[in-house]
Amino acid sequence: MSGLRRVLVANRGEIAVRIIRACHAAGLEAVAVYSDADEHSRWVALADDAAHIGRSAAQKSYLDPDALLKAARSTDADAVHPGYGFLSENGGFARAIEEAGLVFIGPRASVLERMGDKAAARSAAVAAGVPVVPGTEPIAEPGDVARLADEVGFPLLLKAAAGGGGRGIRPVTSLDELRDALPAAQAEARSAFGDPAIYLEKAVSRARHVEVQVLADDHGGVVHLFERDCSVQRRRQKLLEEAPAPGLREETRQAITAAAVRLAEHVGYRGAGTVEFLVDGSGEFYFIEMNARVQVEHPITEMITGVDVVAEQLRIAGGEPLSLDQASIQRRGAAVELRINAEDPERDFAPTPGGIEALRLPGGPGVRVDTGITQGDRISPFYDSLIAKLACWGEDREQAYARARQALAEFHVEGVASTAGLHRRLTADPELIAGPVHTTWLEERLG
Amino acid sequence: MSGLRRVLVANRGEIAVRIIRACHAAGLEAVAVYSDADEHSRWVALADDAAHIGRSAAQKSYLDPDALLKAARSTDADAVHPGYGFLSENGGFARAIEEAGLVFIGPRASVLERMGDKAAARSAAVAAGVPVVPGTEPIAEPGDVARLADEVGFPLLLKAAAGGGGRGIRPVTSLDELRDALPAAQAEARSAFGDPAIYLEKAVSRARHVEVQVLADDHGGVVHLFERDCSVQRRRQKLLEEAPAPGLREETRQAITAAAVRLAEHVGYRGAGTVEFLVDGSGEFYFIEMNARVQVEHPITEMITGVDVVAEQLRIAGGEPLSLDQASIQRRGAAVELRINAEDPERDFAPTPGGIEALRLPGGPGVRVDTGITQGDRISPFYDSLIAKLACWGEDREQAYARARQALAEFHVEGVASTAGLHRRLTADPELIAGPVHTTWLEERLG
Repeated sequence: MSGLRRVLVANRGEIAVRIIRACHAAGLEAVAVYSDADEHSRWVALADDAAHIGRSAAQKSYLDPDALLKAARSTDADAVHPGYGFLSENGGFARAIEEAGLVFIGPRASVLERMGDKAAARSAAVAAGVPVVPGTEPIAEPGDVARLADEVGFPLLLKAAAGGGGRGIRPVTSLDELRDALPAAQAEARSAFGDPAIYLEKAVSRARHVEVQVLADDHGGVVHLFERDCSVQRRRQKLLEEAPAPGLREETRQAITAAAVRLAEHVGYRGAGTVEFLVDGSGEFYFIEMNARVQVEHPITEMITGVDVVAEQLRIAGGEPLSLDQASIQRRGAAVELRINAEDPERDFAPTPGGIEALRLPGGPGVRVDTGITQGDRISPFYDSLIAKLACWGEDREQAYARARQALAEFHVEGVASTAGLHRRLTADPELIAGPVHTTWLEERLG
Repeated sequence: MSGLRRVLVANRGEIAVRIIRACHAAGLEAVAVYSDADEHSRWVALADDAAHIGRSAAQKSYLDPDALLKAARSTDADAVHPGYGFLSENGGFARAIEEAGLVFIGPRASVLERMGDKAAARSAAVAAGVPVVPGTEPIAEPGDVARLADEVGFPLLLKAAAGGGGRGIRPVTSLDELRDALPAAQAEARSAFGDPAIYLEKAVSRARHVEVQVLADDHGGVVHLFERDCSVQRRRQKLLEEAPAPGLREETRQAITAAAVRLAEHVGYRGAGTVEFLVDGSGEFYFIEMNARVQVEHPITEMITGVDVVAEQLRIAGGEPLSLDQASIQRRGAAVELRINAEDPERDFAPTPGGIEALRLPGGPGVRVDTGITQGDRISPFYDSLIAKLACWGEDREQAYARARQALAEFHVEGVASTAGLHRRLTADPELIAGPVHTTWLEERLG
């Protein structure tokens, strides 16, 4: 069904497995890549071909554009799917793939670069009529900072323009604090992101994280697949996500999804992407950033809409129009995803790499498991600590949570500590069940 | 949400696991039962309590009403879910449960008995205005058989009135053949079913098996959940099922689902049930029988409708009305179920009991696995040979089949022969993919 033939899956773990499944279901061949540590992995076994790309350290393999490009050429792939993380939002990698005559399964390199620059993304949102958190342009003259801070109002956030993923952000509650923090923030931004530019943004407190999944093709088709609530976070890492966002007013849903589509249209987006917002108690929403790739939590959107996000990525990259229009996309029920990590909540969520001696996964109605792990594998210290994602659908949110509790009761891992116990407590927590919660709820609860 | 509190699951294997999951998702406790062979089984581990009910031979455990009733009493259960097979359609068992003051999760005993008698079920269908295969009443006077056969027309089937599940049926193509077969058929019916009554039925050749899932509560609510096609059979055992029935005309769908609802209403049905039909090439349909229980293939109906059939059984048994009305039940996409059995297609599907040395199950989008097996378990020679059911949903039938092929590629079992290879061939078979096929298609193909 696609203009593609053979896809290099430039990633690892569960998302590599996910992409291989989508390729095969679409009738495409899939080529896996692996570092030294991943030679005997599940995704290598599932793929039609595989290429070794380097040492276990990600910088020497999954983050090495040359090794990935070489793998694509040597295995005769005609397209590269970057997954999430690693090089998935790297404009230079996308450009190198395209210059080699291969298809990069994602947005154009220029769009990746624009949406990866927080200030540029913010400007694009403003230009598209999408509400942004009140704030400033990147500050060229530090002398203006007092006046600008006064316009924005305290509390505010001091942010690195080139930051992302929750990094390079300092909360500031007064002008004195801001003046003290400014030089260090600039120095840190320069060393962390290669760019000292910073800007100020109003701190939206006790807000929810609501994000909208969009799909855009090269034929002018742009649709949204409704929204997800990802407010259950620790240190800006999502632990549990829901679709749809619980208790969101229908008028807010319509406005926020329309805003996401407007932004995608405005920047000439292509592929699957997520527009992230903060939503405050009054239903006002503010653009945060756009993730120009498939996200970890995409399964819950697939469960409530029936749309295969990765299959649509493949279609779009093959030059085809989207398989659906907005009117045909209907929500059904509710879904919750639990990211079970090999981390020990009792020891400040320290990663617990080690051998997976036993792994029993849940099943049955409404339960979807995505994992890159097989019993006997090792959780490597070199990469993220995800063991499995459990996505649970129900006719309504109550049933989705009930099935999630049952799925967690069935989940069993031996050999490493995991967050499954925390997830058991979360899915039985009256405040979360009553919902919605805000983005610092979990941290306040963990104390 | 239910009037029940603690359910004895009077079954084993994947359906015991399925019922335990539904109990827990509904906030009910679940009590497992086990024979000697099943002490260390998955369903015992998942339940809140468990009772030993006897020896490994099913007659001494899962088919022993007294042992099950004793188990229900000793574990303080207030209801009994019979699953499928075993005593699930046994009116005497249902009556004993009710007389003990417990809730039988199924139809009233009198309805079970009526629908379990083929002739009585046929009469009920006629009275409800549901088309039946042209045929006779039970034949009291063998002398009338020539005249009756002439009315029905050849080829015809000679059937035991008390038969069921495909047993007690002889095809007959001429009057001479009928006269030869009659005495033996009566003798066999007497010895197999305790009742010598036989009747004649027109042979509907090259027909499809289409069945309609119904749900009925004690408040007058009766709905259907659309239909399944289960034509891929070998010796009347289903190997692959689909929902919806491929290529069924919408007018036929409406007529057949309406007929199923009429029959359920007419007999005062309660709970989940399936009305089975033959559908010929012209779209004419004929009632075969009603299965008064949950069926093996219920997951594909759950996937296309989003309705949890077992959860509805629990609601209904708790005295609540159905959670839905007909207008709210919408189909979405298509689903196919593969029954992977521990049988060897190379040796005439001989069961291959033995230890499951390795078991790797598929996952990802649209894939649901139901199994009672964990790696390390044994497939026992005492019971059916089901290893796992793989149910695969897609936005359309093409995607459902593509995902089924991928799920089968991921499925891996060691220690016993299985039908997975046959299922791989089936899901890639151009005739089946073109669909529909008739009920003898697979046998003709296997030769």
